[in-house]
Order: sequence, then structure tokens, then C-alpha cells
Amino acid sequence: MDVIKQFEISKYSGGTEERASDSVVVEYSLTIYLNEKELVTLMCTPKSLDSLVAGVLYSEGVIETAGQIEDISVCEEDGTAHVTLIKERALFAESMDAKAAITKGSGGGKTIFDSSIEKPERIEKRNVIDPDKILALCRQFEKRSEIFIKTGGAHSCALCSQDEIILFEEDIGRHNALEKIFGKALLDDINPEDKMIFTSGRLSSEIIKKAAKRKVPVIVSRSAPTDAAVDIAKELNMTLIGFARGGRMNIYTRQV
Amino acid sequence: MDVIKQFEISKYSGGTEERASDSVVVEYSLTIYLNEKELVTLMCTPKSLDSLVAGVLYSEGVIETAGQIEDISVCEEDGTAHVTLIKERALFAESMDAKAAITKGSGGGKTIFDSSIEKPERIEKRNVIDPDKILALCRQFEKRSEIFIKTGGAHSCALCSQDEIILFEEDIGRHNALEKIFGKALLDDINPEDKMIFTSGRLSSEIIKKAAKRKVPVIVSRSAPTDAAVDIAKELNMTLIGFARGGRMNIYTRQV
Repeated sequence: MDVIKQFEISKYSGGTEERASDSVVVEYSLTIYLNEKELVTLMCTPKSLDSLVAGVLYSEGVIETAGQIEDISVCEEDGTAHVTLIKERALFAESMDAKAAITKGSGGGKTIFDSSIEKPERIEKRNVIDPDKILALCRQFEKRSEIFIKTGGAHSCALCSQDEIILFEEDIGRHNALEKIFGKALLDDINPEDKMIFTSGRLSSEIIKKAAKRKVPVIVSRSAPTDAAVDIAKELNMTLIGFARGGRMNIYTRQV
Repeated sequence: MDVIKQFEISKYSGGTEERASDSVVVEYSLTIYLNEKELVTLMCTPKSLDSLVAGVLYSEGVIETAGQIEDISVCEEDGTAHVTLIKERALFAESMDAKAAITKGSGGGKTIFDSSIEKPERIEKRNVIDPDKILALCRQFEKRSEIFIKTGGAHSCALCSQDEIILFEEDIGRHNALEKIFGKALLDDINPEDKMIFTSGRLSSEIIKKAAKRKVPVIVSRSAPTDAAVDIAKELNMTLIGFARGGRMNIYTRQV
């Protein structure tokens, strides 16, 4: 299965835009079934999936030895992995409530969106972007990232108008930084629907969906998007910009 | 509350080591209680915590307006936030099983370790590091990171001996890449206890604990650690190296 997908994008630099082909990492959804019961869904790279399944079970204490696995059967097309444990261990896994114990972080985030009640809709409101203003905001955004500048260990997120940063937050987690922005906007009654989200973090499908639920039409990252993020942005009519740094950026999708 | 903590570390570069003070990002644990019931624990940066709490509840559909929140009371010393919703919404939150719906990714990872049965123990086996060999491994590690080189959107992880890379994996998630390594080691019967873990990702407490559970004495990252990661590595007698790139590295803790 492909781990990289090609997209036709626009590269902006020094006042001009050029069409280009760009390699984007594939985000794949794998649902693990343990003895026929659904255990967890991981967002991952579709490679070494048997190792991933064994590692997750091992890491969470569901198994202690390779011998406790009777079989791991990965179906790449379906995005499923069926695991059969030997009988003694299956009883133990049942008793520990493996489902409750397993919740993965970072990229391997358990998909939470489907369990959420609020689905994102196509964004109708159009927000025309000015690439040079975005790059100017990027420079301000980087200067504001004090914890990152001092420690190298934090993500930044901002809500911006065309001309300025309205809200700015930092956190060790890129999801947390985004939640802080939307939480603050909610508490302070700031409408995000005509604004832009800037983030230092990678753009996964979950991040895009969170922005889409708040009807933010434009999302800008200094890092890479996944293929799923680009596909969702296109479907929901959002402008998605990646690698916005050093006076350049890649425009993956643009509102129509 | 401090969001940055100072550590006395060794900086290695060009064959020499120097003592230095280094700023490390603070990793803070916040447990959210919704109407007196424990909801979720987030690992985060202790800043704008009321915004974080509101954002998480909002993002997951527990609330739809600020007016549905009666009160958010954050106790920084305890690491707790108590949220009271207005009566109608509290009944709704009860019915949607908010606890099941909320599972955070990336840094905001729900803490899973405490629910796991296997606690890491102090590592007694000593593994002497050779800084120049580690830097040579770093160069090999970066060259092997094909998906990252092509897309900028993947994390790498490797299990290394003193001289070579034994296992190498890439994934969109830094946790997944680590799980793949330990899963593969388990399936192929490779003992990680005398080896080193290399990762491109940041070192949070959860990553260190996962390595500690497998008794890996040395963990090397090209990115930053959190304060909690450094504290745990010290407590468990592990060598923790950060910012290993470009012929330099920071040695935060060293096995004794």
C-alpha cells in the first residue's frame, strides 16, 4: 500500500505562484479487533502494520509475549487487523477491559470524531487569502512562540484576521494548543468563521476536522499536511496551506 | 505556574562536553471533572487552562455555547479542573457518555499509563554511551527517514546497537513509530534491553515510560524533552539525550 501520495499544488514564493507536484504522507485508518471485538482505531502510516498491532497490544499490557498471539491478520484494503490471542490470554484481556486501557496519543490518536455528535459541513463563506499578508502573519506567529523559542518543545496556535493575530496559545500538544484557541474564542465570544487558524503542528485529518467544525475557512501550518487532511479540506471547501515559513508556502487547496 | 524549568545538562559538540543550563518545557497533568465525575486527564502546558477545558468540551460536543458552562474552576496546585454545566446540558452530557467520547491525541494524550498493568522499574543494566557513535547513528537515522525526506510529515524511530541500526520504522505518529519498533522486536525476538531507542519526535513522559517498560537504557531524540521526561529518566536510571542533530547533542540524564 502506498505511504506517499502526489498532489498538484501551488508553491508561493517571492510574489509568484507556481504549479507543482508535491509528495504528501498518507494517513491510514486501522481498526484493531481483538478476538472479534472492536478494540481501537489508529490513524497511522500503512506500513509494518503487524508490528504496530503487536506493539500496541504489548505496550498496553494486553500481551506479554509473542507466544500469546495466535494470529494477526491485517486486511489492508479494509483497514482492519484481526488478532486472536491464545485462550488463557484472551480470558485475561477480557478481564482487564483492554478497550478501556487502550487510548493512543499523537498521530496514533484514537479516532474521536466519529463518536462526536457534531459533523463538519461544507464551508460556504469565502475568505480570499493574500499570500503576502499570510507570510507576514507567519513571521509574527514565530516571534510570539516564546516557549518554543526557549525550549524547542512546544506547539503554537493562533486565530488571525487578515492583518493581525487575535488569539495566541502554546502547548506541548498541537491538539491542546488548538483547543485553547477555540476555548478562548468561545469564552470571549470571538467568531472564528471569518478568520484563519495558524499552527506550528502537522495537519492531520483530526486537526482539519476540528477547524472545520468551527467553520474556519483557512488553515495555515508551518509543517506538513497528510493526504487525508488535504482531501477533507477540499471536500469541505477550505483553504489549506502547509510549509508556511521562510517566505514560502505550499497552497494545497483553495476555497472556491 | 511555570511553563519552563531549568536543568543542568551536558552539551556535547566537536568531541568535547560542557556543563550548561538548559530551558525545558514543563509537562503538566490536568484532570477534568465534569459535574464531579472524572472525565479525562490531559498532559499539557500549564497556561490558559480554562481555555483548554472549554475547548475540549466544545470540540467534543459536550457544550455548544459558553452559556452552557456554569463554572470552570481550575486548581493549578492539584492539577484539577472542576466544570459545572447548567442543568439541562448536564443531563445531555450524561446521556452522551462524554467520558467515552473524549480521547485526546498528541501531547494532549489521555494518560494511559496508570491504567496499564505494567509499571516501569529502575534500570540496573548499565549501557555506556559513546557520543561520537551516537552522532554517527543519528546521521544514518536521518538518511533512512525516507517518508520524512519526501513529505516532511512523518516520524522515525529506530532500535540501535552501539554501532548500527537494528530496526527502523516510520509513521505519521511518534507513538506509532515506537510501537512498531517494540512490536517488531517482540515478534522477531530481539532483546531491546542492551540497545538504544532513537526517535525524531519529542520526548514526553509517555514516550519515556514506554521505553522504560521495555528496559531500554538509552533514548536519543533529535527533538526536545519535557521536564517530566527528564525527571522520569533520572528516576529510572536512563540516559536521555535530546537535540541530537548537526553533530551536537544535549545529555539531560546519564545512567549511573
